[in-house]
Amino acid sequence: MPVLRLIRERFAKEQPLKGVRMSGCLHITTETANLAITLKAGGADLVLCASNPLSTQDDVAAALVSEYGIPTYAIKGEDEKTYYSHINSVLDHNPQMTMDDGCDLVSTLHTKRTDLIPTIIGGMEETTTGVIRLHSMEKQGVLRFPVLAVNDSDTKHLFDNRYGTGQSTLDAIIRSTNVLLAGRTIVVFGYGWCGRGVASRAHGHGANVIVCEVDPTRALEAVMDGYRVMPGVEAAALGDIFITVTGDINVIDQAHLEKMKDGAIIANSGHFNDEINIPALEKLGVNKRRVRDFVDEYTYADGRHVHLLAEGRLVNLSAAEGHPASVMDMSFANQALGSEYMLEHAKELKPQVYTLPQELDKEIARLKLHAMGIKFDTLTPEQEKYLNSWESGT
Amino acid sequence: MPVLRLIRERFAKEQPLKGVRMSGCLHITTETANLAITLKAGGADLVLCASNPLSTQDDVAAALVSEYGIPTYAIKGEDEKTYYSHINSVLDHNPQMTMDDGCDLVSTLHTKRTDLIPTIIGGMEETTTGVIRLHSMEKQGVLRFPVLAVNDSDTKHLFDNRYGTGQSTLDAIIRSTNVLLAGRTIVVFGYGWCGRGVASRAHGHGANVIVCEVDPTRALEAVMDGYRVMPGVEAAALGDIFITVTGDINVIDQAHLEKMKDGAIIANSGHFNDEINIPALEKLGVNKRRVRDFVDEYTYADGRHVHLLAEGRLVNLSAAEGHPASVMDMSFANQALGSEYMLEHAKELKPQVYTLPQELDKEIARLKLHAMGIKFDTLTPEQEKYLNSWESGT
Amino acid sequence: MPVLRLIRERFAKEQPLKGVRMSGCLHITTETANLAITLKAGGADLVLCASNPLSTQDDVAAALVSEYGIPTYAIKGEDEKTYYSHINSVLDHNPQMTMDDGCDLVSTLHTKRTDLIPTIIGGMEETTTGVIRLHSMEKQGVLRFPVLAVNDSDTKHLFDNRYGTGQSTLDAIIRSTNVLLAGRTIVVFGYGWCGRGVASRAHGHGANVIVCEVDPTRALEAVMDGYRVMPGVEAAALGDIFITVTGDINVIDQAHLEKMKDGAIIANSGHFNDEINIPALEKLGVNKRRVRDFVDEYTYADGRHVHLLAEGRLVNLSAAEGHPASVMDMSFANQALGSEYMLEHAKELKPQVYTLPQELDKEIARLKLHAMGIKFDTLTPEQEKYLNSWESGT
Amino acid sequence: MPVLRLIRERFAKEQPLKGVRMSGCLHITTETANLAITLKAGGADLVLCASNPLSTQDDVAAALVSEYGIPTYAIKGEDEKTYYSHINSVLDHNPQMTMDDGCDLVSTLHTKRTDLIPTIIGGMEETTTGVIRLHSMEKQGVLRFPVLAVNDSDTKHLFDNRYGTGQSTLDAIIRSTNVLLAGRTIVVFGYGWCGRGVASRAHGHGANVIVCEVDPTRALEAVMDGYRVMPGVEAAALGDIFITVTGDINVIDQAHLEKMKDGAIIANSGHFNDEINIPALEKLGVNKRRVRDFVDEYTYADGRHVHLLAEGRLVNLSAAEGHPASVMDMSFANQALGSEYMLEHAKELKPQVYTLPQELDKEIARLKLHAMGIKFDTLTPEQEKYLNSWESGT
Repeated sequence: MPVLRLIRERFAKEQPLKGVRMSGCLHITTETANLAITLKAGGADLVLCASNPLSTQDDVAAALVSEYGIPTYAIKGEDEKTYYSHINSVLDHNPQMTMDDGCDLVSTLHTKRTDLIPTIIGGMEETTTGVIRLHSMEKQGVLRFPVLAVNDSDTKHLFDNRYGTGQSTLDAIIRSTNVLLAGRTIVVFGYGWCGRGVASRAHGHGANVIVCEVDPTRALEAVMDGYRVMPGVEAAALGDIFITVTGDINVIDQAHLEKMKDGAIIANSGHFNDEINIPALEKLGVNKRRVRDFVDEYTYADGRHVHLLAEGRLVNLSAAEGHPASVMDMSFANQALGSEYMLEHAKELKPQVYTLPQELDKEIARLKLHAMGIKFDTLTPEQEKYLNSWESGT
Repeated sequence: MPVLRLIRERFAKEQPLKGVRMSGCLHITTETANLAITLKAGGADLVLCASNPLSTQDDVAAALVSEYGIPTYAIKGEDEKTYYSHINSVLDHNPQMTMDDGCDLVSTLHTKRTDLIPTIIGGMEETTTGVIRLHSMEKQGVLRFPVLAVNDSDTKHLFDNRYGTGQSTLDAIIRSTNVLLAGRTIVVFGYGWCGRGVASRAHGHGANVIVCEVDPTRALEAVMDGYRVMPGVEAAALGDIFITVTGDINVIDQAHLEKMKDGAIIANSGHFNDEINIPALEKLGVNKRRVRDFVDEYTYADGRHVHLLAEGRLVNLSAAEGHPASVMDMSFANQALGSEYMLEHAKELKPQVYTLPQELDKEIARLKLHAMGIKFDTLTPEQEKYLNSWESGT
Repeated sequence: MPVLRLIRERFAKEQPLKGVRMSGCLHITTETANLAITLKAGGADLVLCASNPLSTQDDVAAALVSEYGIPTYAIKGEDEKTYYSHINSVLDHNPQMTMDDGCDLVSTLHTKRTDLIPTIIGGMEETTTGVIRLHSMEKQGVLRFPVLAVNDSDTKHLFDNRYGTGQSTLDAIIRSTNVLLAGRTIVVFGYGWCGRGVASRAHGHGANVIVCEVDPTRALEAVMDGYRVMPGVEAAALGDIFITVTGDINVIDQAHLEKMKDGAIIANSGHFNDEINIPALEKLGVNKRRVRDFVDEYTYADGRHVHLLAEGRLVNLSAAEGHPASVMDMSFANQALGSEYMLEHAKELKPQVYTLPQELDKEIARLKLHAMGIKFDTLTPEQEKYLNSWESGT
Repeated sequence: MPVLRLIRERFAKEQPLKGVRMSGCLHITTETANLAITLKAGGADLVLCASNPLSTQDDVAAALVSEYGIPTYAIKGEDEKTYYSHINSVLDHNPQMTMDDGCDLVSTLHTKRTDLIPTIIGGMEETTTGVIRLHSMEKQGVLRFPVLAVNDSDTKHLFDNRYGTGQSTLDAIIRSTNVLLAGRTIVVFGYGWCGRGVASRAHGHGANVIVCEVDPTRALEAVMDGYRVMPGVEAAALGDIFITVTGDINVIDQAHLEKMKDGAIIANSGHFNDEINIPALEKLGVNKRRVRDFVDEYTYADGRHVHLLAEGRLVNLSAAEGHPASVMDMSFANQALGSEYMLEHAKELKPQVYTLPQELDKEIARLKLHAMGIKFDTLTPEQEKYLNSWESGT
């Protein structure tokens, strides 16, 4: 993670976060550990908990505590009660800044721990799902401190969501099933940045891709990109593999489940495990057994088998290793620079959702290209001037 | 053009542009004729001129005048003097609204015909290049009426710039040279929407694509999309075919021209013909001859041959037929709905650059999908509610 | 055509075809002219006629006669009677060797001009279609002299059929219709080398491709390559554009034509114009008009419109310029080296279909890579030895 | 594995292999178990050993012995001595037919166990590597019984080598390194069916692919497919990831290793582990440590790190699960039908390398399409007749 390393080196010298209490709710992985160490190097007083019950790498959690002195409340497979007790533990740290991956920290603060809000100056949010929740809070007028939508940085969502989710989702499906993707019909629900990445990688494996969307512009883009677009219920009868990445609920609902072919595989790569209507699947299945790690086979009354991966939780973190380090490098560079920016600018900000200034965003892209050894052009003064003039025409 | 047809039918009934004087500076093609007829059906008092000296289809210009009674000042191959006299002719119409494709109308108004400005309520601009010029005018505080950046509608730039420019640019290169693209190295300057389209279609022909960019985020996207990225001067020595789509000047400059291989082909698909430094090429060439329609072969002193297509003017309009009707359908639907919107809302607008409201933009996508016979999903009430809530978490 | 140029230079010196009477039936294009000049440089006494009534470039035919002294019987748009009178004219030359593109010369010899056969030592055949006919003649025991299936050289069919037919077929469809291919459903009949090329380029334009095949192995490959495979009659109801490249008859038959959507476009890129059942289309159409060059619109009784391109003749030669020079360079290098080989080896050959020796085939690939400036590896002695040994194992 | 299941059902009834002693040397995986059970169902008296020391799934070996009564000599990680003792154990079975995956059984028979040859009627060989060795034996006149090159069936090499090796090789690299492939330069050595599959999947992940080849026709195809082609030593300095699939020795040699960038990853997906010169790497590395499962990091004297995966053994079987069941289904259907064919036809065959008759090959494709629920066209009598006639022309 060369970008984060460069930032860490500067942070260690400049101590921009010196003494700031931070609470983070993130997937506890080696990449997150890198971010945590960077923030601590910058002087932050940091505690962490998991943002998903299944995604914790226990050895990482242990190392954060024992080697780096960063309190970390997380254990792989924790139940919901433990999950929320961990969230409360990091809030007990009385944070000045929050870091969220899915908005569970911020929403808990705004519902059950409102007493802590007065001393909070701002937060950062990593995911599309979290940003959707924050916008909803802002619209309803309940958001009480500014939050940086790290997800909306170009160097985050264009790369993490598209290339990271794309590769790791397909990787997780192959690891858990060892199915050949070439020649299969893969149905992708959602054509946002994650959905594009998933569709592109599925296609790159030789699959025939169907996209289901609710937004007409995105649906039209999917058509123009060469995919079939149709209502999900129609696609349900055609697909061999189904992947949800929408950020919404019951995207694969009972009506879809009823139509699926024998042998169908269902996976979710959206943030929460409610994109698939699992209770409906539980009812349709007269029998259920685990046939491989992360693969539950449901047998319908008529003998059809449907396979649910990773219990509907985000499959790339559950059944594979999540995003590769090289995309998390950019995402977490946004978190690190975002923390610094929030601290400096919180006073000018309202309780709204903000994005990182474009110049910081581009700086991360520049550092990344540099780390990859790739050179690119710069505008000549003549070109710069031309772009800023409007007088000369045809 | 089914989307425009639906709009025309409504316009004919509702007469939203009744009696409004409009002056348009657009490529005079069959697609533009469709737009013109739609506006006239809506009641507009319209006159047209060409937005590029080479792109006029003379039979279309004639038919607009004789069959539809729309004064049209344009002839293929007109010289610069005639070009500007035509612009002045349409301004003599004393327009209340302008339609531009490259901002020549608006810039002439702001420099030489400022007397006409007081009665203008607003305008529309079709291209990236024009929008760049308008933003520059706005930034310098000289823009004097509101302009809708039609180019910035999703249903314009995501489709017209990407799929339209992509296909038609490669089409023009094949038509004018009949060269096999498979196995060639194609260098694309610019990775905006047009550049993405061109790169994607070049790759779809089996070419090996190099992208040159000045923006680090775009450069990084090009890398992640599997292309090589390098400074233009390095690419100059490697390419077989060069295509500029940047909106900037001297993107292929003397330094590039000097390094090119024998047999290199150069084309521009950006709006103006100054993306290639043609004077420098004229100096490097000790001999110049036309070897096929639209192909000028320059022979360097050392015997190398370099081929310039369409004199550096936008190759897809000069050497082929421009965008296919089906993308112009959406672009011009934006122009038509934009005219109506401007008329209704001009009073609320400042002398700035605006985009079409998203709902109109999505409506165009919806009409287009409908015309293609493609159905897609809609949110259930449960899903709608879920997206607007923030309380429920992991 | 750098490969052919290298061969021509050697031929001019060595005169391997000195005084040999040759009759060729080929598409009369600039590329064929290059081959003719090469053969003549090698000493051949050559006459030519057209292998397709629509594919002649009249200026090329004229130049062959007047500038190069090669009698050429061909005129664009010739009727069937003239076509066969031209074939007879080149046979009147009393050839010792034949060159065919579709086997019309050889089949005429074996039916109506059998008197000429005794002095013929052998022939060359350029196309898949011609080779199929020759194999049928060989199987029925009627073939009376050896023929080299130039088509079966790797440097012919892997490149000409795949990349040449692929690009030029799509080019012809775009030139004649200016339709946007992105987002369209394109149905390709046949998944041989031509069909693969067409499918690949259609996909590269953003189309959604359906393949129709009769061979199970090829059908399965198409599936694994990510395309949909289904019976033609089912595809007929789904496609926007249909392309036949099978070498068989009535591939698009009445049953298909009846199901097509309003606006469907049909093109043939196979050798003969009987892949589409045009008489059936003529009956279904209550009205027929030419809407653009090479585009006939048939209106069905129920109002649907179907567009037939180039009267069902091979669309890439009729409505565009045929294969780019760089693929014909390799194909015709096979013709030239094949002529030389046939002359040297005819006595050892039986009246059967032969392929060019692999070493000549690879030599052409080597010359081509050299011409493109591309270097590649060679086996080390150690590696060569390893490949020829079998003793060493795990 | 539905194709093999259909064959097993027939075999169980017909007992075509009743009492035939067979010895197989194959990767001991679940897919092989399926084949073994099929052969046993057909009456064969079968024993098995591993064809690679690292590829055995120990639970499968155990189940074959205990549940199915098939003696199986294999344990994951066995050393070379054990490996060959296992080969000798299965030869002690005194086989009438052999099944090989890499030719170790047949070569041992022809060198150290020649006494057993008289009672052998024939064998089957699964891999490209094995077939190369067999052809070498045939050419040198030492092969003493007929062998069916199962690898050369279309339904084997077109699918197993291309799609199977393609997906599983990239899968193994991602599993062992979790590296993001998008934006990386991946160098593929060899552009046979395996190499094509690997290159295609690498490209499908967004990588920039370089191909190294020694065959000019294949090199030219790689160029036309849009990849860069260059000598391996040049590519060595550019690549991030290197994959060998050539069947030859020292394809990545000391000269390549010396040029590699810091962080380079090297994997072999060819049959034997001598495609990479590991002794040279051991010398270049001043330090070596295992950084993840299957990843050995070598540190050069100048500080560069190079990562070798799976000790240079075939990475898809070592670090992932080998080919997906659906491709092995076709490959092993060839083995099963090949056994039956060999038994029936051995008397007519010479001690040479044969391929399975095309009709059996196509039957497997037909069964596979049927199992996937895909329908395709059949020739009409008219079309069949047309293909067999040669008289009708233009």
